[in-house]
Amino acid sequence: MNMPTPLHTQLGVVRRNIVRADAAATEALARFGSATVHEAMGRMGLMKPYMRPIHSAQVSGTAVTVLLHPGDNWMMHVVAEQIRPGDIVVAAITADCSDGYFGDLLATSFMARGAKALVIDAGVRDVRELGAMGFPVWSKAISAKGTIKATLGSVNVPVVCAGALVQPGDAIVADDDGVVVVPAADVERVREAAAKREALEAGKRAQLAAGVLGLDMYAMRGPLEQAGLVYID
Amino acid sequence: MNMPTPLHTQLGVVRRNIVRADAAATEALARFGSATVHEAMGRMGLMKPYMRPIHSAQVSGTAVTVLLHPGDNWMMHVVAEQIRPGDIVVAAITADCSDGYFGDLLATSFMARGAKALVIDAGVRDVRELGAMGFPVWSKAISAKGTIKATLGSVNVPVVCAGALVQPGDAIVADDDGVVVVPAADVERVREAAAKREALEAGKRAQLAAGVLGLDMYAMRGPLEQAGLVYID
Amino acid sequence: MNMPTPLHTQLGVVRRNIVRADAAATEALARFGSATVHEAMGRMGLMKPYMRPIHSAQVSGTAVTVLLHPGDNWMMHVVAEQIRPGDIVVAAITADCSDGYFGDLLATSFMARGAKALVIDAGVRDVRELGAMGFPVWSKAISAKGTIKATLGSVNVPVVCAGALVQPGDAIVADDDGVVVVPAADVERVREAAAKREALEAGKRAQLAAGVLGLDMYAMRGPLEQAGLVYID
Amino acid sequence: MNMPTPLHTQLGVVRRNIVRADAAATEALARFGSATVHEAMGRMGLMKPYMRPIHSAQVSGTAVTVLLHPGDNWMMHVVAEQIRPGDIVVAAITADCSDGYFGDLLATSFMARGAKALVIDAGVRDVRELGAMGFPVWSKAISAKGTIKATLGSVNVPVVCAGALVQPGDAIVADDDGVVVVPAADVERVREAAAKREALEAGKRAQLAAGVLGLDMYAMRGPLEQAGLVYID
Amino acid sequence: MNMPTPLHTQLGVVRRNIVRADAAATEALARFGSATVHEAMGRMGLMKPYMRPIHSAQVSGTAVTVLLHPGDNWMMHVVAEQIRPGDIVVAAITADCSDGYFGDLLATSFMARGAKALVIDAGVRDVRELGAMGFPVWSKAISAKGTIKATLGSVNVPVVCAGALVQPGDAIVADDDGVVVVPAADVERVREAAAKREALEAGKRAQLAAGVLGLDMYAMRGPLEQAGLVYID
Amino acid sequence: MNMPTPLHTQLGVVRRNIVRADAAATEALARFGSATVHEAMGRMGLMKPYMRPIHSAQVSGTAVTVLLHPGDNWMMHVVAEQIRPGDIVVAAITADCSDGYFGDLLATSFMARGAKALVIDAGVRDVRELGAMGFPVWSKAISAKGTIKATLGSVNVPVVCAGALVQPGDAIVADDDGVVVVPAADVERVREAAAKREALEAGKRAQLAAGVLGLDMYAMRGPLEQAGLVYID
Repeated sequence: MNMPTPLHTQLGVVRRNIVRADAAATEALARFGSATVHEAMGRMGLMKPYMRPIHSAQVSGTAVTVLLHPGDNWMMHVVAEQIRPGDIVVAAITADCSDGYFGDLLATSFMARGAKALVIDAGVRDVRELGAMGFPVWSKAISAKGTIKATLGSVNVPVVCAGALVQPGDAIVADDDGVVVVPAADVERVREAAAKREALEAGKRAQLAAGVLGLDMYAMRGPLEQAGLVYID
Repeated sequence: MNMPTPLHTQLGVVRRNIVRADAAATEALARFGSATVHEAMGRMGLMKPYMRPIHSAQVSGTAVTVLLHPGDNWMMHVVAEQIRPGDIVVAAITADCSDGYFGDLLATSFMARGAKALVIDAGVRDVRELGAMGFPVWSKAISAKGTIKATLGSVNVPVVCAGALVQPGDAIVADDDGVVVVPAADVERVREAAAKREALEAGKRAQLAAGVLGLDMYAMRGPLEQAGLVYID
Repeated sequence: MNMPTPLHTQLGVVRRNIVRADAAATEALARFGSATVHEAMGRMGLMKPYMRPIHSAQVSGTAVTVLLHPGDNWMMHVVAEQIRPGDIVVAAITADCSDGYFGDLLATSFMARGAKALVIDAGVRDVRELGAMGFPVWSKAISAKGTIKATLGSVNVPVVCAGALVQPGDAIVADDDGVVVVPAADVERVREAAAKREALEAGKRAQLAAGVLGLDMYAMRGPLEQAGLVYID
Repeated sequence: MNMPTPLHTQLGVVRRNIVRADAAATEALARFGSATVHEAMGRMGLMKPYMRPIHSAQVSGTAVTVLLHPGDNWMMHVVAEQIRPGDIVVAAITADCSDGYFGDLLATSFMARGAKALVIDAGVRDVRELGAMGFPVWSKAISAKGTIKATLGSVNVPVVCAGALVQPGDAIVADDDGVVVVPAADVERVREAAAKREALEAGKRAQLAAGVLGLDMYAMRGPLEQAGLVYID
Repeated sequence: MNMPTPLHTQLGVVRRNIVRADAAATEALARFGSATVHEAMGRMGLMKPYMRPIHSAQVSGTAVTVLLHPGDNWMMHVVAEQIRPGDIVVAAITADCSDGYFGDLLATSFMARGAKALVIDAGVRDVRELGAMGFPVWSKAISAKGTIKATLGSVNVPVVCAGALVQPGDAIVADDDGVVVVPAADVERVREAAAKREALEAGKRAQLAAGVLGLDMYAMRGPLEQAGLVYID
Repeated sequence: MNMPTPLHTQLGVVRRNIVRADAAATEALARFGSATVHEAMGRMGLMKPYMRPIHSAQVSGTAVTVLLHPGDNWMMHVVAEQIRPGDIVVAAITADCSDGYFGDLLATSFMARGAKALVIDAGVRDVRELGAMGFPVWSKAISAKGTIKATLGSVNVPVVCAGALVQPGDAIVADDDGVVVVPAADVERVREAAAKREALEAGKRAQLAAGVLGLDMYAMRGPLEQAGLVYID
């Protein structure tokens, strides 16, 4: 089962077995992008907009989580062992920190384990190399500042990353617009809603391109008038 | 039971019955303050330091949570009904917002319901009146900007407030140093650890006041030398 | 007449005669405070919430405006001459700057001219002395950093201060919640609306203190149900 | 005429007829870029530097303005109808907000109406698609966060966008250095000043490339010595 | 001698003997305050304005410096031993951090050693207790977040604190306006310049209070006219 | 000799003869990048991560420094004359400022003098042209805002730039990860340490790519167990 134990008991813990969101449904979320998926969830689940890609990318995957301390990346090596193909590592820090927790060596290791991306609420470095390697990263900062390996954190516990709660196994959808978290149990339902939304948008796009106004396409003129909108010359 | 359902299903939901942390143990946490309680939890559970008191105060209480939308305080009236004496309202917003969600009228209502404080990841207003009323508030901002009442949020769902996960019923300890969240199941254990820590500190304080150095009191000279510390003239 | 000429033609200009908002009506706005006045204006006219009082205060007055350059407070001496009793000086800068443009000497001069307060989109210094003198200031920063006197700005031109457009002669209402700008032509209308709003609030406050819920007082239960709000146990 | 009525009376208003800056002169401003145009205006008219292009671009056009509420993009559909070929939509928000007000559907509609760009003091989304479509956008943030359609704002009223006052019909010049606002009445005069400035710069560039120092080219050595500059070895 | 060795060789070093600025002259700087002292130094030496007092205070003293790592306050105990009566501890961090490095226990120790204040480019906690103890602190943040003791820093090496270079033994002047650093060799010269400046200000204050304008007192009307200032009605 | 005189005596000073770091060793640092060099220095010497390249680049060179005032770029022309081939200009400001101090004309002059790059704790403009010219710039901001030429600063004095102390002649290494300062006396030693570090990384990279875990490669399992790490299923 995937129920969180209280957070404060979880320092120094690595959970090996987690229930991952369905692989195929998670994989299918990538092409919708973070905006459509977030809308399909009822406008929920987004990380804060300071979480940005270091290079343009669009991916989805299942979350393995890691909780680290400021200036200490020891647990990044511990989480590497828990990665399975299709996973996205989601890294949270116990206090604000912009240090460079992750670079080309760790990326080499993560890729060898099958990781699809990293989402980290701190800084990364070797960004040019990461681009050349084609390993997608979303981070709060870019910083050459190195870290130490002194204090235990945890792996695969619930974490708060850039303002969003992430449970191990949740689906992550990330692109140039941001990062959204889909609870594992809802992935299929969200995929369907996103597909519906996208299908609707195709028709709307054609109308708008033809010069139809959103005012008419969405039948907004009545509600706007009722709300009191006044046109003057 | 208190297990969270996935967040995105929870817009438009009010949970009436929540399991609150033990009232006496929660009440007892206040005098330790946020720093000692946070240490007693293994240095976990703190909200980000931008969460500041609008007036100096020190309280503890059980969390009733509310999730609101940017610029919309409709659910503040819904949460008022769920307040029981001894509660602290913890308000989270689905996106960054500094608007003034709360003022003297809502404070009057919250106080009449027995609320001990408000912790809100947004702005408040009427801060002079709130000080005169003696109602403690921790917030991200102070702003006269008003809000609308148009969109549903939820009450007593798990929320992320200033970077910390808060489950309904958790204990909240807030003072001039910040705000810490104690999972309901751990309140008694944390109280004991905090009491021990405080007892130890009293003896340390006396020694330090007498001129004993922390270097000696904590037996740090050996470890520092071993780590390579060099004294030069 | 008070119509703005294009902004870029106005460097190096001092307008001596401005149409000030009605003195009595402006004076009467102070006691309502910025939140009530802002609501009475249809939730418009607020400066951004980074504009904070250096000491708790509540005032209203008519705006004389000054536009300065980063790190240059020359025009503060020019605007002093244009102050009339009851005025509040509103100072804008052509680019972001936190330097200390204003201290106890300028405050002495402003008070001698009858100024009621300063609102400045930059820094001030001598804040302890300003508190002792009882001269209210709202600013973006506190900084000991001094300024030079090298470049012309303007006095009594329209300025953008902390995100709000201020025309010379507009009424300014400032308190611990923030700063609001009332167009000169609307002061009496806004005063009436604010008085009405305040009168309504008195009755509401009594009900809320007696334990009536906002849900009932504002008849929100129907609209909430219609919007889909669900109560669960 | 184009004189602003007081701002607070303007919620819920759409002005259909505005006086646009001369089309040819406005068009001609683009190639000078924001830095040269801003200098030609006496170093005035710039938006704050947080206003950044989502993709490299350089354009000019006439402003149609829209005032929106935090988290609410209803008026974006209203402003679409007021766009004429050559316009740039300038969007201001009544309080700080980073939500994604604009994406590929609205861009499709704006392009069909002839809009040349969007400048928005908030967030946008679908940034990859916007790049593929070739629709230039300057914004404060990128965010997948969706918005609602609940509250009236206004169209073609004076707005404050990123610290700059924009009147409907003003010329906007935007490039990778930022965004500058040219009052409609001054466009021709500014165009001439910018052309002169640019002509002068060509000669200077050649001299500097040949190794002539600015110290000599601008005859600065005398003034520097007079100001007290001392050379030491 | 007090010449800095290269910074990167200085991790893990404690310098015991430093040349402190003259005690009497340093003591005498306090009453001038940071603004006057900074002006007396030619508008140099200020820390950035985010360095704020946790409680109103005005002090001066000689700097003992400490360089710490993010989230690690081990060296605070090492620096305690190097404090002499009249010193102010200046703490710098190798990367941005807002954790609470300092609380009432360390303050007890610092006071027992004769320290007059702490200036720290990070966070502190126990702020209510620090106020009650009367120990002045300037910091970047207030945070209950605890720190570890794992990595060596240095004591009495040159540090950059809030943007200012501080050499061990320099004089520090701190008040509600900010913090200024006076090189040890210049304290007497700066004291004299500050005294002169203050004497001049007394006369100016009297004139301004009597209604004389700065325009006349500083003979600014000529230079302003020459610069092109135009008065219009 | 290269010992700094007190900072406040140095306004209005240009030092012509500085001791530059060894040219060949400085040149050799570029290929290691800022992260490796910073690690080779014991994790010291980095500027704050807000210092970002305006276009992707990787360079090293010897520092010529310039200290400027907010909004005033006069000294940029003075420093141009002091540039020798292989230098990187490091520009510090006496207070926070984001104005555009530098554009294509100054870049033309700097390139003609042999400068390899600019690192500036303020804003720059003409960023598209700078990219086309291939002149690398690291800055705090991009802004079209122009500057004046009114107040003296200094050239080749010690400066604090983005939180790092830079002595004239120090080596600067800058890339997409940030900017690091190497004291002139340490360049050869740092070069050797960086080369060793890089050689070690090549072997590690191969192992990690082959699927070896950092846990095993770095022999972390023992220390992690000793620290109390617990694996659960």
